[in-house]
Amino acid sequence: GDGRMGVMYNGSDWNFNSRIRAKFTMSGQTDGGLEFGGSVRADQATNATSGTSASVYISGAFGKVSMGDVVGASEALFGDLAEVGYTDLDGAGLGNISGLSVGASRNNMGANEIPYLTGDNGGSVVGSTANTGPNLLYTGTFGAFSVAASASDGKAVSTSDNQEYALAAAYTMGDYTIGAGYEIVDVTTGQNWKQGEIVGTATFGNTAVKAYYADGSGGNNLDKAYGIGVSSVFGATTVNGYVNYAEATDGTNGTAYGIGAAYDLGGGASVVGGVADSDIAGTDTQADLGIKFSF
Amino acid sequence: GDGRMGVMYNGSDWNFNSRIRAKFTMSGQTDGGLEFGGSVRADQATNATSGTSASVYISGAFGKVSMGDVVGASEALFGDLAEVGYTDLDGAGLGNISGLSVGASRNNMGANEIPYLTGDNGGSVVGSTANTGPNLLYTGTFGAFSVAASASDGKAVSTSDNQEYALAAAYTMGDYTIGAGYEIVDVTTGQNWKQGEIVGTATFGNTAVKAYYADGSGGNNLDKAYGIGVSSVFGATTVNGYVNYAEATDGTNGTAYGIGAAYDLGGGASVVGGVADSDIAGTDTQADLGIKFSF
Amino acid sequence: GDGRMGVMYNGSDWNFNSRIRAKFTMSGQTDGGLEFGGSVRADQATNATSGTSASVYISGAFGKVSMGDVVGASEALFGDLAEVGYTDLDGAGLGNISGLSVGASRNNMGANEIPYLTGDNGGSVVGSTANTGPNLLYTGTFGAFSVAASASDGKAVSTSDNQEYALAAAYTMGDYTIGAGYEIVDVTTGQNWKQGEIVGTATFGNTAVKAYYADGSGGNNLDKAYGIGVSSVFGATTVNGYVNYAEATDGTNGTAYGIGAAYDLGGGASVVGGVADSDIAGTDTQADLGIKFSF
Repeated sequence: GDGRMGVMYNGSDWNFNSRIRAKFTMSGQTDGGLEFGGSVRADQATNATSGTSASVYISGAFGKVSMGDVVGASEALFGDLAEVGYTDLDGAGLGNISGLSVGASRNNMGANEIPYLTGDNGGSVVGSTANTGPNLLYTGTFGAFSVAASASDGKAVSTSDNQEYALAAAYTMGDYTIGAGYEIVDVTTGQNWKQGEIVGTATFGNTAVKAYYADGSGGNNLDKAYGIGVSSVFGATTVNGYVNYAEATDGTNGTAYGIGAAYDLGGGASVVGGVADSDIAGTDTQADLGIKFSF
Repeated sequence: GDGRMGVMYNGSDWNFNSRIRAKFTMSGQTDGGLEFGGSVRADQATNATSGTSASVYISGAFGKVSMGDVVGASEALFGDLAEVGYTDLDGAGLGNISGLSVGASRNNMGANEIPYLTGDNGGSVVGSTANTGPNLLYTGTFGAFSVAASASDGKAVSTSDNQEYALAAAYTMGDYTIGAGYEIVDVTTGQNWKQGEIVGTATFGNTAVKAYYADGSGGNNLDKAYGIGVSSVFGATTVNGYVNYAEATDGTNGTAYGIGAAYDLGGGASVVGGVADSDIAGTDTQADLGIKFSF
Repeated sequence: GDGRMGVMYNGSDWNFNSRIRAKFTMSGQTDGGLEFGGSVRADQATNATSGTSASVYISGAFGKVSMGDVVGASEALFGDLAEVGYTDLDGAGLGNISGLSVGASRNNMGANEIPYLTGDNGGSVVGSTANTGPNLLYTGTFGAFSVAASASDGKAVSTSDNQEYALAAAYTMGDYTIGAGYEIVDVTTGQNWKQGEIVGTATFGNTAVKAYYADGSGGNNLDKAYGIGVSSVFGATTVNGYVNYAEATDGTNGTAYGIGAAYDLGGGASVVGGVADSDIAGTDTQADLGIKFSF
């Protein structure tokens, strides 16, 4: 499980902020050597029974197949930019750009998130208010190559609904990884939403850098987005920062940025603080300082 | 806990279906040698605090007393017919018979379920929309005889409501068990609902057979029901099947049937699939194929 | 976790009453020797993610800082009067006094509870319907002295709301402890609510006695309250009782009283029963008898 406690500034006030979550990890192995399992947090337990939160998996030499609330293929391989603050500080994130928030609810709109088109919410598909149930994700690593594929099932019970699928691949050479992903939402009416991403990561000594470029097409309300995140380790201290720009097809755009630090107290406890902001109208500076626990 | 993932056909579409559940089992022993405990799944946690899901028990040489969301006396001794499919495939079950679904909400109406009158839903009593809170169940085994008794408390807080009680007994002789149960719902208005069941089970080598006959009387909307279920083990493969007929007092009736197989992968994982259907108007064939995990 | 089962009389009817709860306790230690952790019950899991139930803490030689659903400073040091019955039997509690229940929702109004003004409900502050989020509690013990301080953050998101804070101190000398607390709710409109408490505890052989006097001032709807609780251990049997009087500023008043016994079966199981009542209009005698389990 994990816990946290501290104070958070939400743009106008400092508030106490704490939480505690218990997580249960289950796994097993078949006689033939396949591994299977899943994990669920106590607060996800009810939705986990219908596959719209948490997930289960089976894995072997062929890779890993997961079902439930899984991320899309691109996010599975590349993840997001480094997070700042003990509460993630998403209040001034890309979701505040008006052209990205009207008409369709996108996931992955946090300040430090790469704005992936698919996955990440257990069956909530862009442009649909229905939950299309568990999603499917395959990931596999073969030597220097990693591949991923994901899909929603495109049905809200028996009604056809927007269906998403995505493919991604990455190539790793020493401290460098370069990869690309392509995501499609096959909408029931209108033009399909499409999005491609190119992501590169590099490690220089104690510093890791991740940069991406995303390009929307079809009915996608995202025109383009790019960003860079940096994480540097100095002994027990880690410093994280990012700059993240997105532009909607209607021309509205904005840049979110954040910087933070974490000091490892050992034993699973860290003191973590950060500041994040953006130039998007209507957003205010976010800041926090607290203690994070992992158990 | 348990998990599952796979695909399910609901009569018109194939859908992804997955879930994961964490289960906590607690037990202890008094200085005098009585055992006590209970179990609760994470998704039941909120209702378990009011006794309308999960249950607690105390047991000793006298038998076992359980309170909470317990089954009725008959179901405690006899259970249901063999289940097929990794999702249970109840979509075409006996609850689709119009004479059993109107006017009163019965539990135990799945395709492979013996249509017991009482228990099974933590205080939801036939003919009442209120939850009368925790139910009580006693079971005891004395040599070849097993007995069970159950009751709801007949109160929704301080309002008298429909009360249910049931008695059952079984006699086991080698590979054969024969038993009978009698269930009553003492309704606050109108005629009491009554139902008797006779159930027999037999094991022939690797094959287990269960057959039942249920007879309703009083205000019961079930006239009669009968069915047979078979389960055969061939090495790592288990084949299950059932035929289950019910007739309402208004003459509407139907037969549900299903067949399925499970292949044990070892370590708690099985590949499970099945097909179920019925001749009841408005139902469609149900099918699934997936992997089940137990942890 | 814990469980219980038995029967409860709510003033007009006997009802079955059972529950089971799973509790997860997490803890760790930093390299510098600070301890941290938290606990959450499965049924609290969803609210625990926003800090309005359960809590997290960090502790060391300086004392213990907790955040989440914590009690106020006074309650942290002094607790409540002895509880009777396996279900706590709060139905005839002080909250039934009309002058204490109208106009503002107070916590800590059970039959055996000292009517503390602050804390105990994860951010629900007297006189406000909003939840002001996690509360903060500090406790420390230095030789014979114990001190505590608590606060809510006074914000419902960004809206200023009633803020509570409290201070308490206690001095222990052998079997005697004497202490005092002072609690304030700084309301956004009108007069602040204030309340002081003096609490003493004493242990005579196998008998423990706790007595308190509470005095309200400012906008507080409690004029005064006082009570005494006694707990005596005779071998495996513990007998508890209390008398608890409160008077509202509008003159309405009442006395709650209760007596009960617990017999320890060993291994975490006890048979517990009790009777509680009050002279407050509209209340009825409460009684119960059941088994309590702790796991």
